[in-house]
Amino acid sequence: MPSLLPNWNDGAGRTAILRFVARVNEAGSPDFLPPEERIATFDNDGTLWCEQPLQVQFFFGRDQLKKLADADPSLKLRQPYKAFLEHDIAIIKQEGKQGFFEVAAATHAGMTNDEFHLQACAWLAGAKNPLVNRRFIDLVYRPQLELMEFLQKNDFRIFIVSGGGVDLIRAFSEEVYAVPRSQVVGSSVKTRMETRDGKVDLLKLPELQSFDDREAKVQNIALHIGRRPVLAFGNSDGDLAMLQYALSGDGPRLGLLLHHDDAEREFAYDREFAVSPLAEALDRRDDLGITLISMKNDWRSIFPDEGSTFP
Amino acid sequence: MPSLLPNWNDGAGRTAILRFVARVNEAGSPDFLPPEERIATFDNDGTLWCEQPLQVQFFFGRDQLKKLADADPSLKLRQPYKAFLEHDIAIIKQEGKQGFFEVAAATHAGMTNDEFHLQACAWLAGAKNPLVNRRFIDLVYRPQLELMEFLQKNDFRIFIVSGGGVDLIRAFSEEVYAVPRSQVVGSSVKTRMETRDGKVDLLKLPELQSFDDREAKVQNIALHIGRRPVLAFGNSDGDLAMLQYALSGDGPRLGLLLHHDDAEREFAYDREFAVSPLAEALDRRDDLGITLISMKNDWRSIFPDEGSTFP
Ligand SMILES: [Ca+2]
Ligand SMILES: [Ca+2]
Repeated sequence: MPSLLPNWNDGAGRTAILRFVARVNEAGSPDFLPPEERIATFDNDGTLWCEQPLQVQFFFGRDQLKKLADADPSLKLRQPYKAFLEHDIAIIKQEGKQGFFEVAAATHAGMTNDEFHLQACAWLAGAKNPLVNRRFIDLVYRPQLELMEFLQKNDFRIFIVSGGGVDLIRAFSEEVYAVPRSQVVGSSVKTRMETRDGKVDLLKLPELQSFDDREAKVQNIALHIGRRPVLAFGNSDGDLAMLQYALSGDGPRLGLLLHHDDAEREFAYDREFAVSPLAEALDRRDDLGITLISMKNDWRSIFPDEGSTFP
Repeated sequence: MPSLLPNWNDGAGRTAILRFVARVNEAGSPDFLPPEERIATFDNDGTLWCEQPLQVQFFFGRDQLKKLADADPSLKLRQPYKAFLEHDIAIIKQEGKQGFFEVAAATHAGMTNDEFHLQACAWLAGAKNPLVNRRFIDLVYRPQLELMEFLQKNDFRIFIVSGGGVDLIRAFSEEVYAVPRSQVVGSSVKTRMETRDGKVDLLKLPELQSFDDREAKVQNIALHIGRRPVLAFGNSDGDLAMLQYALSGDGPRLGLLLHHDDAEREFAYDREFAVSPLAEALDRRDDLGITLISMKNDWRSIFPDEGSTFP
């Protein structure tokens, strides 16, 4: 195996990445980028970890809801809670990704940020994907871990920019991705400051502050990062605005789109995944200069445990 | 001069800082902090640079407004624009800091983020404090530059958390403070994504998104940083919530409050500075465990040019 990006097969994708990094490193070249300009943004669900059969946020929200329903059984009869508790995928998909982010947010209300963090850490330590007997945090993509490490070694600053709840991702981003919590941008709820026994805390409110998808990804990148990324990596139409934003700056740019075309080792899906479809970005990729990454052809392995695949 | 913090006089303030850093560095001690926990937040106006006779944001807004008034002279007759153009401090102070942040925001509307950044850089390169023939960016406090550098050398990650506009601070934070743009949190306006000639940009709107003062500083720290700071440094009641938030976590904590008590070398003001008073924090500092830093006694010099002071 080659020493750089060993889990990326030789091909157009790997070559585009290596050439891009070589270009920005070339001292004296007009394409050279000083470290502060080396901003890379990665979507999370389906780009860095597995989002099938549904995004991890759904399972977290459902498990939180189960605890609430034990205390208040009437929730089992009311939508959308009923659908979540019964795992009624048809109704859940109707609600879309924002729908289940909102259900999750409702279940977090009244918790402080610190309490939420502890609960999220405890849940992630054990929660498993229902299709395979493995934890969600073990179903991250090995080639992406390699890519992020490679970029960081080349002075890139990696940001995760996700439609998922920012504080759920922050509960594992440092340990699993080596990305500091302050470099995670995501959906968020409003909070209220409270002082209890002289201790200042933030209470989560059941009100959406930002659903970090599509145009909002661009707005939140500007708000949190303050600089146009030079590299962006996504896997759905929710990432198209972010990819266009990165690609429409001056100088060297790289926009990458992961295509789940590997039914053998993971899943094959795009247009029909209603919660987070890949359609427009797939159709416009050539015009926009986006490099398509085929999971099947470009990745030597999928998950960190050698040989482990779905189902 | 000592090699550590040479522009800090020997005294309780300098000692508190050195002891705090020694504690968090002591391997094996319960106070040891891993690097990811070493989050320090600094207010900007009056904490890192001079805010007299008014915050720099005011002068930037006024100069932007002058350009607009040249195109639309009717602005010269309407409040609050009239007060800004005529530098009518009494009326401006009535409006408070949020008031002139809003005027500034109004003058930025219709600009893209990229255009704003270029204008802010150009303005900062030349704009001078009206009381002394020096540029605003040269009126940063040398002891604070030393402190931030010292903390960074000890693996702290510095964030600026300011009531000022986030994008104005980002136009000089890297060069002047060695703080990356992504580590600047501040007031912000809403934006709208636009595609012109295939290029994606964000247009600033004349609508406040967040006025980053008081409780909002705590909320924005949680949103942007995702972790409770262990060190916070401010200079007014607008920083009290942030100081309390930092101090009410577990483990080693340091809350610092700069007192402008040096009429000889800079200014002496606190309760009477209506735009950003220091009153409640001064009264409650002992109860809250806040360390007061006296500009007069704790700082050997004020500005980077040796010997340069006000007036
Ligand atoms: Ca995705
Ligand atoms: Ca201040």
